[in-house]
Amino acid sequence: MRLRNNPKANDILASEPSIVIETPEDHKNKWHLEFGNDHPIYIEIGMGKGNFIIENAKRYPDINFIGIEKYPSVLVVALSKVLEEEKLPNLRLMKYDALALGAVFGKQEITQIFLNFSDPWPKSRHEKRRLTYKSFLDVYNTILIDKGSIVFKTDNRSLFEYSLYSMNNYGMQFQDVCLDLHNSEGYEDNILTEYERKFSPFGPIYRIDTKFKGVE
Amino acid sequence: MRLRNNPKANDILASEPSIVIETPEDHKNKWHLEFGNDHPIYIEIGMGKGNFIIENAKRYPDINFIGIEKYPSVLVVALSKVLEEEKLPNLRLMKYDALALGAVFGKQEITQIFLNFSDPWPKSRHEKRRLTYKSFLDVYNTILIDKGSIVFKTDNRSLFEYSLYSMNNYGMQFQDVCLDLHNSEGYEDNILTEYERKFSPFGPIYRIDTKFKGVE
Repeated sequence: MRLRNNPKANDILASEPSIVIETPEDHKNKWHLEFGNDHPIYIEIGMGKGNFIIENAKRYPDINFIGIEKYPSVLVVALSKVLEEEKLPNLRLMKYDALALGAVFGKQEITQIFLNFSDPWPKSRHEKRRLTYKSFLDVYNTILIDKGSIVFKTDNRSLFEYSLYSMNNYGMQFQDVCLDLHNSEGYEDNILTEYERKFSPFGPIYRIDTKFKGVE
Repeated sequence: MRLRNNPKANDILASEPSIVIETPEDHKNKWHLEFGNDHPIYIEIGMGKGNFIIENAKRYPDINFIGIEKYPSVLVVALSKVLEEEKLPNLRLMKYDALALGAVFGKQEITQIFLNFSDPWPKSRHEKRRLTYKSFLDVYNTILIDKGSIVFKTDNRSLFEYSLYSMNNYGMQFQDVCLDLHNSEGYEDNILTEYERKFSPFGPIYRIDTKFKGVE
């Protein structure tokens, strides 16, 4: 998502270095030192306003979470929400581009990736920008553990159709597909994003849980 | 689909041997002799009342079509519709169980398989009866040519979710996924089944075009 540009965004982000990681590359292959434990690390790519990852961090204290967002003006909104909470030692934020995450995380350093309501980039010529395009899948495949999942939610039908196609053609293995998340049984633990809360009344939320084929 | 049992069904079917194939096994590996040409053969498994395959046969005279239905009382309805049409030399019907089709068609004898609005068999214990369960995929994989497609339509969300999962986990390659066929561009040549015409106003029609991975 994007918001109007906030000219002070980068300064605000720099003022909270215990939450917003300034030079993420320095932590590659040693994120456990930053968190001070060996718990699994889950990341959300394109975290938007942050509700989803903050709620996850509160609910699952034995998992480390990193929220990643490309746009500083958006990350500032998420940061302000984190600051409203009790201290969450298992949550970090960072400004970064998804395609470059191989510079930030080592091979198999991540246990789960969340993609929520990613920009659909509907025009064919923008296919390469979609977060489920194969060059992004290459990155995820590198940083995820063998059994690591990608859990992807969207309300955009075309993006979901494309993602099913792209992930299948990449050779990924579907673990669960849901074509109407808010009207299905078995997803009572679903944590909503801000966007999801606002737009779910207007149509189905699609969700897939999928992994790369590797060691069984 | 099922209808009330018609006690005369088998007699009626036997009375039209030029349309309803009586002993399909006799044609294995030589269906081109039955049709008198070498055109590709498309089959519909679970043809119901027959509108879909009849319209296909009329529209594409250079393709041979075989409509397959397990229930004689249903096949009689389709037969009556065929008899209302001008003679269609490229259409045959047969009563057969999908799981046994390896006895009827040789390896790679079929170019395309249509599955339309198959029984969803919603209970978990009936998973093995769904036409996209792996034992059925085994049959399709045998009789289809390398580049042969399975085109599957349904309005049943759970069956479609299951089928995406099952076909992906079988290793099939998705060629096209559509989650709202009647509100998408590019499907203007869609031929409707009776069921589809009746129920499409009440929710989306899902469709997938997929193939087995083989020779590229």
